[in-house]
Amino acid sequence: MNAIIVSVGNELTSGQTVDTNSAYLSRRIAEFGICPLAHWTVGDSRRDIAEAIARASGSADVVIVSGGLGPTADDQTRQAVAEALGCELVLDEGCLARIEEFFRARGRVMGEANRIQAMAPRGAELLENKVGTAPGLFARIGEAAVFVVPGVPSEMEWMFDNQIAPRLPRNSGVTIHRTIHTFGAGESDVGTRILDLMQKTGPVLVGTTVAAGMVSIRIISRGKTGQEAQAQSEEVAQEVKRRLGELVIGEGSQSMAARVGEMLRERRQTLATAESCTGGLLGQMITSVPGASDYYLGGVISYANRVKEQLLGVEARVIAEHGAVSEEVAGAMAHGARKLMGSDWAISITGVAGPGGSSAEKPVGLVWMALAGPGGVKTSKTLWGGTREIIRVRAALNAINMLRLELMNR
Amino acid sequence: MNAIIVSVGNELTSGQTVDTNSAYLSRRIAEFGICPLAHWTVGDSRRDIAEAIARASGSADVVIVSGGLGPTADDQTRQAVAEALGCELVLDEGCLARIEEFFRARGRVMGEANRIQAMAPRGAELLENKVGTAPGLFARIGEAAVFVVPGVPSEMEWMFDNQIAPRLPRNSGVTIHRTIHTFGAGESDVGTRILDLMQKTGPVLVGTTVAAGMVSIRIISRGKTGQEAQAQSEEVAQEVKRRLGELVIGEGSQSMAARVGEMLRERRQTLATAESCTGGLLGQMITSVPGASDYYLGGVISYANRVKEQLLGVEARVIAEHGAVSEEVAGAMAHGARKLMGSDWAISITGVAGPGGSSAEKPVGLVWMALAGPGGVKTSKTLWGGTREIIRVRAALNAINMLRLELMNR
Repeated sequence: MNAIIVSVGNELTSGQTVDTNSAYLSRRIAEFGICPLAHWTVGDSRRDIAEAIARASGSADVVIVSGGLGPTADDQTRQAVAEALGCELVLDEGCLARIEEFFRARGRVMGEANRIQAMAPRGAELLENKVGTAPGLFARIGEAAVFVVPGVPSEMEWMFDNQIAPRLPRNSGVTIHRTIHTFGAGESDVGTRILDLMQKTGPVLVGTTVAAGMVSIRIISRGKTGQEAQAQSEEVAQEVKRRLGELVIGEGSQSMAARVGEMLRERRQTLATAESCTGGLLGQMITSVPGASDYYLGGVISYANRVKEQLLGVEARVIAEHGAVSEEVAGAMAHGARKLMGSDWAISITGVAGPGGSSAEKPVGLVWMALAGPGGVKTSKTLWGGTREIIRVRAALNAINMLRLELMNR
Repeated sequence: MNAIIVSVGNELTSGQTVDTNSAYLSRRIAEFGICPLAHWTVGDSRRDIAEAIARASGSADVVIVSGGLGPTADDQTRQAVAEALGCELVLDEGCLARIEEFFRARGRVMGEANRIQAMAPRGAELLENKVGTAPGLFARIGEAAVFVVPGVPSEMEWMFDNQIAPRLPRNSGVTIHRTIHTFGAGESDVGTRILDLMQKTGPVLVGTTVAAGMVSIRIISRGKTGQEAQAQSEEVAQEVKRRLGELVIGEGSQSMAARVGEMLRERRQTLATAESCTGGLLGQMITSVPGASDYYLGGVISYANRVKEQLLGVEARVIAEHGAVSEEVAGAMAHGARKLMGSDWAISITGVAGPGGSSAEKPVGLVWMALAGPGGVKTSKTLWGGTREIIRVRAALNAINMLRLELMNR
């Protein structure tokens, strides 16, 4: 069983936006044993969209179209589906009421333009969208099952889980994707430790990808049944984890912050933060985990030196002597945050994120981190290249990793 | 003059890698007045690649294919071009010598597998690749100019500049892209105000896209010269800005935080933050702008109520009476942060980001924000659906927007 993914939008064909929906949908349908044959991207032209849908329906068992369902004049996918089906669009009163309610619940009034979103070609089914105003569509064109969903990634993902997945044709084979995240070693180091696993062909394939200093190991396992695919995947995953040891952070969507959160919750311990160059990113990562209030008390963003002194108790003399980006200041920030918040642990970051603010001694990318805990204060230094954003993300991840390693080894 | 971009690789169709080449190539050919019609992505199947090339050649003036030129068995693009041309592959001795030299210069010996990279279909031209071992191809299929380049982004980019660009058919026109960002109204509201501009066809096309509560207006202008395209674009941009008024944040890569930063710098004023549910995201957005230390003093992440009380001076009585997510607490947080940091302005956020922590009165998505300034404290409430991440991003953007509107209207 196979599929073609169609993405719609001038912002995609013009290259102003990179299409990430097609890759996402390909990975998801593979879980159902459906093989993605091709991705097609077309602009906001009704004729082009209709032609792509008609052609895809003739070549694949499943067609998933994303984009072009909005309320504005350049959204033509709904009309194109009608054209491909050779049917007219009709208003669905129930759907219209739901869209009106969506606006009402948010204290807004539905505009006239949104009416089109409650219309579907005769013979197509409207798919409810609980996270946005644009419902999707489901139709059969020839032998193919055709799904149409909004292009906004968060809405597309919700629609996949709640509307497409339950309607996908069942297949005999199953493919399972699994991702193990590591932190603390480069891609070639990680690759060398699992080289033989990566070179193997057969039902289980192993690869690596790298993003923001994290190296992730992808395991793709194909089996006749879900159980078989699962067992094969598990065996390889265990071997990968054994070889990579404490580099392994977690799996799938589990972030480093979530892993550290679990460990803190188990130990009933609390955490505070003190940030300079990351400006809140460290706190944001920690609190991106639902339920972080169980262990995270809060933090100070001490961007100005005065805030470091007055709130965190870093002595002005220490800043003057060593500079704001120094081992001494990082240590004093963590110590001060732990005291101020009354937490078990505190992590701090001070660095030069650039592009300005550097000196010969303190280049862009230099970051000092500290961890204050029951046993005292530990410090750590890193120096990376990259953009302001990359430096900040790596600094925050590395600071959380200090705590992870400390908790693991206690 | 128009083009179709074809990307080749199982890692793309399977979704393991997101295709960024197509977007890059689309942006580049637009500089030459060539309009990208579609992007097609196919797997490593010789037949599928040949079919895509043949079909694209029948539909577009220019076809650019990337990927599948490597030395391994899964690289089939070279053979597919031969199939589409109906010619056999022949060895180019000069090219073989250059590849051998490429290896020699790096202290390595060319493997036998690399021989295939020196082969080209009869009638096609080999395009030298000075940054890798895989030469590209140039052929005419029917009326179309067909270019084939390696899929590695750095090699593809080098090949575009040095091999494709000089051979592109000269067009009379130039295309300019421009994006205007807005915040504070939905896509349908924005669309309604510029409907006539969006419905116009001709040299200037107007469209909208939405991401994280921001609606962006794209203007694509085609002119005979760069000057003409620029003038047309400017005229429409002015009209769009006139109609959307204070919804307009900025253009291109300018974020809301950068716009607010500019306004604060001009006024020599300072800013502090107090965050609960966003946990540092607000500070992170503000400090993502280089040079934010000119106006941003710092912030408090008051995740626990005790931190709201002890650091920000929010009275325990007020929290007990109204709850942590309330107008009163938001106001007291902003007031407290302004006093604590000694800033001109302070913005605060407290809300229910979910998925837990909600009640009938205070559902997931309810966010209270406040702005404290020289004239006192203003508050604002919003209620959105969506994931924890979406709610947090919108809350942070909305809080910055409160300050933007206040600064604009003073």
